[in-house]
This record gives sequence, structure tokens and C-alpha cells, in this order.
Amino acid sequence: MAGGPVCVSDMQKKNEIVVAIDGCGGDRGSRHIVSAVRFAQTLYPHMRQLVFGPSMLEDELHGGRVDMKRCEFRLASQAIPQDAPINEVLERYQRSSMRLALEAVKDGEAQAMVSAGGTGPLVVLARHILGQSHKLRPALTARMPAGPGRHALMLDLGANAQCSAQDLADFAVLGDAAARLMLGLSDPRVALLNVGMEERKGSHLVQEAKKLLEQERKLTFTGFIEADRIFRGDADVIVTDGFSGNIALKAAEGVYTIFAKVPGLKRFFARMAQPDWLMPWQYNGSVLLGVDGIVVKSHANAGDDAFAVAVVEAAKSAQLDLAAGMRDILSGRD
Amino acid sequence: MAGGPVCVSDMQKKNEIVVAIDGCGGDRGSRHIVSAVRFAQTLYPHMRQLVFGPSMLEDELHGGRVDMKRCEFRLASQAIPQDAPINEVLERYQRSSMRLALEAVKDGEAQAMVSAGGTGPLVVLARHILGQSHKLRPALTARMPAGPGRHALMLDLGANAQCSAQDLADFAVLGDAAARLMLGLSDPRVALLNVGMEERKGSHLVQEAKKLLEQERKLTFTGFIEADRIFRGDADVIVTDGFSGNIALKAAEGVYTIFAKVPGLKRFFARMAQPDWLMPWQYNGSVLLGVDGIVVKSHANAGDDAFAVAVVEAAKSAQLDLAAGMRDILSGRD
Repeated sequence: MAGGPVCVSDMQKKNEIVVAIDGCGGDRGSRHIVSAVRFAQTLYPHMRQLVFGPSMLEDELHGGRVDMKRCEFRLASQAIPQDAPINEVLERYQRSSMRLALEAVKDGEAQAMVSAGGTGPLVVLARHILGQSHKLRPALTARMPAGPGRHALMLDLGANAQCSAQDLADFAVLGDAAARLMLGLSDPRVALLNVGMEERKGSHLVQEAKKLLEQERKLTFTGFIEADRIFRGDADVIVTDGFSGNIALKAAEGVYTIFAKVPGLKRFFARMAQPDWLMPWQYNGSVLLGVDGIVVKSHANAGDDAFAVAVVEAAKSAQLDLAAGMRDILSGRD
Repeated sequence: MAGGPVCVSDMQKKNEIVVAIDGCGGDRGSRHIVSAVRFAQTLYPHMRQLVFGPSMLEDELHGGRVDMKRCEFRLASQAIPQDAPINEVLERYQRSSMRLALEAVKDGEAQAMVSAGGTGPLVVLARHILGQSHKLRPALTARMPAGPGRHALMLDLGANAQCSAQDLADFAVLGDAAARLMLGLSDPRVALLNVGMEERKGSHLVQEAKKLLEQERKLTFTGFIEADRIFRGDADVIVTDGFSGNIALKAAEGVYTIFAKVPGLKRFFARMAQPDWLMPWQYNGSVLLGVDGIVVKSHANAGDDAFAVAVVEAAKSAQLDLAAGMRDILSGRD
């Protein structure tokens, strides 16, 4: 059971979640991290934070109205650039905030970590430090709005720009397990993202993946789904390659953002009793499935609120004991 | 000059556009075609319509409050199923409404055609009947909202589920020419859709395509663009493979549709002086670039309004003399 919580830091008390935060990732600098840490403390009171970053960040945390009884700073002398070459990540950044935050999860000091750093470095380091689950290819997933009070999981959202049909079949297995835990479903409907519903539609990749998924007897595979149906609740797990998944997510966010900027719209929704599920800021934080520990990726350019939401996503996943739950479900399949 | 207008039907008068309509495509049956024909007559008065379909459709047109002085019915004894095998399309459907509508453009009876039929059959038939422009791979494009009063073109939207890097370079050339004509731009900024902005990001396909586009001296290639930026006006032409383009378009539409259904939202926008560009129904009708004639593809499940919008899109493209304009620009590049 490599990577499972081995010991728990003295800092952690009963019912309290410890989240390790990579204080260097993201495009917006350390002041933004401080605001997010503070906001996350408000959103999720039963959380302690281990923040990894440069000494300047420590000063800012102390000066930034953060409750330091619930936040511990750890010095990290390196930051990994968003576009660091993948082959250098393991060797060159031993003291980076991202790596140290992952090691805190590995060592059981934290139950989850969150980073707004580069996806490539994060996936490579997470696989290396936490280990891969059941030889399945890791993928990023997140809750998509699928109607009032309903969600679906889509994966991969960008961990793998290049995918094989077997990778897509792996994502289906990971997504099925995650939907049981994250959405509380006993029999998630798994669909494959495509450009049409007809049997023969789509790329070679989706055609091959469809054949593999039809053979997966432990999944409820419902066939193809088109991208406009993601948000209608037609499937619980939407499987796609990391390129298309990222495009779908960001195209949807682009439209959200346009609407969200219309003055008075939020008040209008409140008056119409339209719940928050339409608003985008609460959807940040993709969970990296397929590694043996909880790793949450935030948008690199997330605002303070959104980064805080990713921190809360990490805490919620820890509260669910997502990593152990995934281990149990995936072991049961073997 | 294969496929250019040779003669013009007697039906066509000065300033009047003739649009050939495939009366069989689409998922919603012929009554829906009749409503769309009628609505298009209202939206675009200077248009005559040639409607191809089964005899039942003729009766419905006559009974459906359509102005028959501006609408001529032509019998087509075959309909091509949405999922017709591509290798059968040319041989088996000689008397189909889709084929006859394309032949009306080829023969100069109509200046544009519109179909809600299958994309695969439409592309194959259009290439065969109208001819391919300058050996460039045909692609579907459409105006994307890119800010109040602004648009961008994205392509391919689904004509090619499988693309090579050279195909993407072809799309850039087609998109550049179309943006000059359809958006009235003298120097369109062409960007390549990717999952990040960093140099090394993305699939092998986008990496290869980027190299080709950097060598295209007649294009203003601005590098990568992420999908949330499509709607912000960061580029005028967004190039992508037909799989990702279709996913981006439909994901955006999915979110639009959720918002559009919120009761009172349209009134709210009107009161806020938020223009119609936020509303989805006006965005239907993708233009097939790279064939020598004007071909517009409507969503198969477009509502009456949306199909009418696609008919109007065809008329507007004819009014622009898009096919001849594309020929001129592309010849100038050689």
C-alpha cells in the first residue's frame, strides 16, 4: 500500500484535514497564495495547511491576516517553472515547493496536496513520489455541472495531451471508481466523448476505445456522448483524451466567464432562485486520479477565490478518504 | 474556375439570392423544414429558395403559409441517412435531396446550398460535385462570438475527425481567406488551438502544425490559443482539428443552452443592453470552406429558428460572393 498515510503529524487533530499547499505554482505570485490560504480557512474551518514556498511567503503569511494556528509554513528553496522540461523535473527540483508538498502527502504529514503549478511537472512528480495506482494511466478529473444539484466527472482534463485507446479505457476505470466516491453513485454511467452519436463517427482513437470499453464488463458503458450533453446529466463519467477534455472544459469556462461578467447577473440568478451551480468560480481544482494519494491541480491563473476552492476540493477529497477508497475499489476489480 | 456560377436561373432577379435547401437532412422531419423556410423568408426578404425533398414536403410547403412565389419545390426521391457509409454516398444516392441541392449550385441555379444532413456525406458530395479549392483540405467554419459586435472564425468544426499537421496548415490558409471576406479583416490573426500557451505544450499534432504555420509567410500566425480565449477576441482565426473544434463548439453551446433556459434571462439581457451576441440560437450554420461553391451545414437537431439562421447564413455568404472571393484570394497566393 505504497503512499497510504503512514503516520499523521502532531498538527492533525481529530476530524481535522491537513492540506499541503504548493506556494509557488500559478501565475499570480505569493500575495495571491496568502489571500487564497485565508479564504480557504473561512470556507473549510476543519483544515490545517502546510504551505511550502520561499521565505518571502512566510513574511506575507504572517502579515496577511492568516490564522497561523491553522497554517504552518515550510521553506522550499526552489520553484518549478510552468514549462520546465519534463526530463529535468525529477533530478533538478529536489527542494521545490511542489515536490516537498507531495512528499508531505507521501509521509503522511498531509492527506492531500494542491498546486497551481505546471501540469506536466505535477503529474511526473506525483507518479514518482506517490506511485501509480494499479498500472492505470493517471488523469485529471473534475466535477462538471450536470443540472441543479447534479454533477458528472470528466477525464482526462489535460494530464495527457497524447492518449492511446488503452489510456482511455484506463480513464474509464478510474472515473467509474471516482464517481462512486465523489458523486456517491452505485452504478455510474460511463460515456465516451465524441463528435456524434452514430456508431461510425469520430477519430480512430475513439473508435478503438469504444471497442475496449464495450469489453469492460465491470463498467456501465453507455456509448458516445457529444460535448453539449456534458452539462445535461446524460452521463456520470465522461471519458476523453487530455487534449479534447481540456478544450471542452476551457471552452465551457470561456462561455461561463462571459456570462459571469454581465453586471447584475449574479443578483438576477439569486432572485430567480437559480442556484450557484451555474457560476464558474466554484469549479476549480482537478483531482489527479491514478496516483496513490490526493493531488489537486488548480488553474495556473486562478483568482484568489478559485485557488481557495481548489484547496477546499483537496480537503473534501481527504475527508472522503478518496485515495484509500480508490485503492479498495481498484483492488476489488483485480 | 470549376464550379463558379455559370448561368443564373430565371427565377433569380437583381440583388436576389437563390439558396438551395436540402429538405431531407436533420432529425426533426419535414414540418420543421417548412417552418424554417417560412422564418428564413422573414429574416432575409431578398432570397428565393429551391427546396429539394419528397412529394410530401411539397404538400406541406403549400399548406404551411410559405410564400411560394419565393420558394420553388423540386422532387428528390432519395434521402441520405445521417450515418450513410461514406463509400456508398457517391454511387447510391444520385437522386438524393442533398446531391440535387449541390448540383443546383454547380449548375448556377442557386448561389448557395444548406443542409442539416450528415457531415460525412455532405463533405464527400460537395468535394465531388463542386470540386476542391487549390488542393486544400475542406473544413467547416463558423463565426464565434468574440465580444460585443466582434467575431472570430474557428475551423475545422467537424468535417475531418482525423487530421494531419498539413491539414491544419490548410485550414489556416482557408481561415485567413475567409476571415478577410466574412469578417472584413485585412490582416487576420491566426492562432492554433492548444491546451496551453507554452511552446512545448500539446499533442504531436499541434507541435508539428505549429512548425508548418511558422513557415507560412503569408499568414499572421500568433501561436497557441487556449479554448477559454476563443470568445475573448484574442485571435481572428482559430485553427484546430475537426474533433477538438467540434468538441469546443458543442461544449460552448452546452453552456449557452443552460443559460438560455433560465427564465427571464433574455429580458434581463435586453434590459441590461447586453446584445444578442450572447444568445446561441443565432449561431447556426457552418460554412464548408475548401470547396468551390457555398455550402452551409446546419446542426442535425437544429430547431426551426436555428435552421432558418443557417439558410440566412447561406444567403449572406452568397451576397458576399464568398466562393468567388475565396478563389481570388487563394489564386493570389499561388
